[in-house]
Amino acid sequence: MKRSALSELGARTEAPPVSWLMATALTRRDLISLAAGFTDSATLPVSEVRQIVNELMRRPREGQAALQYGTTAGDPTLRRLTMERLRELDGDRTNGAAWSPERLLITNGSQQLLYILVEALCDPGDIVLVEDPTYFVFLGILQSHGIAARGVKTQADGLDLGHLDLVLQSLKTAGQLRKLKLLYLVSYYQNPTGITTSFEKKVGALRLLRCYEHAAGHPIYLVEDAAYRELRFSGPEVKSALAAAAQRERVIYIGTYSKPFATGIRAGFGLIPDPVLAPVLRIKANHDFGSSNLLQQVLARALESGRYKTHLGELRRRYAAKAGLMGQAIRKFFPPAVAWTEPQGGLYYWPRLPKGVRSGTQSRLFQSALDNGVFYVPGELCYAHEPTRQRPNHEMRLSFGAAGEAEITRGIQRLGKALHSLLD
Amino acid sequence: MKRSALSELGARTEAPPVSWLMATALTRRDLISLAAGFTDSATLPVSEVRQIVNELMRRPREGQAALQYGTTAGDPTLRRLTMERLRELDGDRTNGAAWSPERLLITNGSQQLLYILVEALCDPGDIVLVEDPTYFVFLGILQSHGIAARGVKTQADGLDLGHLDLVLQSLKTAGQLRKLKLLYLVSYYQNPTGITTSFEKKVGALRLLRCYEHAAGHPIYLVEDAAYRELRFSGPEVKSALAAAAQRERVIYIGTYSKPFATGIRAGFGLIPDPVLAPVLRIKANHDFGSSNLLQQVLARALESGRYKTHLGELRRRYAAKAGLMGQAIRKFFPPAVAWTEPQGGLYYWPRLPKGVRSGTQSRLFQSALDNGVFYVPGELCYAHEPTRQRPNHEMRLSFGAAGEAEITRGIQRLGKALHSLLD
Repeated sequence: MKRSALSELGARTEAPPVSWLMATALTRRDLISLAAGFTDSATLPVSEVRQIVNELMRRPREGQAALQYGTTAGDPTLRRLTMERLRELDGDRTNGAAWSPERLLITNGSQQLLYILVEALCDPGDIVLVEDPTYFVFLGILQSHGIAARGVKTQADGLDLGHLDLVLQSLKTAGQLRKLKLLYLVSYYQNPTGITTSFEKKVGALRLLRCYEHAAGHPIYLVEDAAYRELRFSGPEVKSALAAAAQRERVIYIGTYSKPFATGIRAGFGLIPDPVLAPVLRIKANHDFGSSNLLQQVLARALESGRYKTHLGELRRRYAAKAGLMGQAIRKFFPPAVAWTEPQGGLYYWPRLPKGVRSGTQSRLFQSALDNGVFYVPGELCYAHEPTRQRPNHEMRLSFGAAGEAEITRGIQRLGKALHSLLD
Repeated sequence: MKRSALSELGARTEAPPVSWLMATALTRRDLISLAAGFTDSATLPVSEVRQIVNELMRRPREGQAALQYGTTAGDPTLRRLTMERLRELDGDRTNGAAWSPERLLITNGSQQLLYILVEALCDPGDIVLVEDPTYFVFLGILQSHGIAARGVKTQADGLDLGHLDLVLQSLKTAGQLRKLKLLYLVSYYQNPTGITTSFEKKVGALRLLRCYEHAAGHPIYLVEDAAYRELRFSGPEVKSALAAAAQRERVIYIGTYSKPFATGIRAGFGLIPDPVLAPVLRIKANHDFGSSNLLQQVLARALESGRYKTHLGELRRRYAAKAGLMGQAIRKFFPPAVAWTEPQGGLYYWPRLPKGVRSGTQSRLFQSALDNGVFYVPGELCYAHEPTRQRPNHEMRLSFGAAGEAEITRGIQRLGKALHSLLD
């Protein structure tokens, strides 16, 4: 046979780097993984889920409703409760149409919504702006669809608006602005850096995007991925871009219940402005005409009964403790030349090595870490491939999500040993 | 703003006809729906799921495993048990690599797998062969991706192989064979006609496709969608195309647990040959990196404990009774000019009106049925749009899935009244 039967997308789609990391982990059972973005198994709400399912299945009629197909957009109660939670988080006192559950969609984790949004908005050859660095699985979705990711620099409080303006200007000059539909922002305790974007910067980014819409000839959306929002353990509550009332029609807000409740219950959601909502719902209908009703009803009951909030409190305390522990270990075991910041939420540290010291999969450090029995996500995987540059290659994502207390300390100690042998 | 920000796919994707039917149902609560493809709520395994979740959540360690992320391909136990079930259904006594769980993937209902397969194999402008008529939601996936569906005639035992040869020949003559990657077949108690394709015809179709591969320049796959396979209530067990050992490398087999167990547990699966498996897994990783672990473990335990089989037996008996009831009512209330066949499984009857009498959404019959308080899926929705023809418009899909006994009889009586007023 001369050719394969694959489509362009089928042939283009690369294996996600996560697969390689997972395969590495599986071949060496003694390895401590600080790479996985998994949540802490000890925090998973086992007794809560058991109780809720028992309540749901007590009466045949209610149990049957949970085991039957639902609607494409999702369970009405879960959508209403999700909207109420969002309004609470953003301190909204109004009651406008902007906060209608009709604009809300439930998906199989927020990942599915990211995928559908890319399908609904972007064609092959289009350009998407991302933070530099960004969530690497999103880069995989873009790669799969033949879309170029272009990085915008970040600062301690999020996006570098000056650089965003520069990038937009250069796209305008090159006549490429019509290929730009969205800016993707992981706004809270970012994966991978742990950085939170300030509310002011979100508003600033929205204003900037708006300035370039005329030249683009179409709306440019801010996709706010708030996956880690609820995993806050210090610092103030920061409002989402939805609170920028004047710009709200350009905000696509994405959240998830996987991280703050249970990863095995794959449920995410999105609040989507009108012109994008209808195509997103149609594509969702083609994907699977609606997520599992059972999982949605379990979540709705967790929210309604207050178990969700109680559980979230416990979970935050545990992650705060584990983050503190990892910070202590880094202080103790890493050479002083390694720079890092204490995260205020989420699951990640993002140590930066001195320039010239590489952390990538082909680096001496990565190999030495493996030899010492520990591994991490190399920073380079989190940067967009751009023809004009080498991807930065001197950072590492360390997760305190899945690893237990003893593993965290031992893992950092092993990594410290590898770093010392290279830097000293 | 001059343009919308939508992609070509986003702008092209049409609202599924199901949405329109559902919206119709919601505006008139008194309507009896013989349209929905929902399963019977009374058959949903409420106490089984409650018991299983209690078993899974009894010990924290097992409960946590069910509530944590799994792998992209799916739960290993569920994949092994699914493969054993397939081998049992196909009466396979060998133990070859063809039946390895490594080739099996779990998805969010079989719908998601259909979507991913189209993504992996087809580009806009490609052609897919479907039965005439076929599962209309699949037509929606093709439409969304800019792929042309081309109908192959069917007979009482499935595909008309003579017509398949003709269609393949005409594609070859037109130089379009390189655009053809797959033939889609709903092989058991087909949605919408209730027809089952004989094993001999599956083998015949595979042989025919193989003959045209040289001219196509790539493999042409038979996608066997066996969604209704386990809902058999009379007639013999028919082997799947997987039993055609010599052609197995061209068979993509798709099954589901939604119909035979619970629609609220959205779980489907596929057995996929090697060159297609890797890209499908990569695309699945981009969609959601794996279906809900909790739902998969519930299913695995249902299969392992024997509850699945026991429940399936009850479900078959119930559908058999309801199918019988619908048949009786049709005999009693429909004019003799309406032709129909007794299904041996699945959820559907497919009455055919005399030529010239239309059943479509714009027809007098459809309106009269609504006036009488009943509605159905118009047959035309199940036919591919082809530029060379009008879609047949004299059939209707009637489901005995969701409706209760009293509704079935009353619904058919109402529909009979509408038919009599038009035909007499």
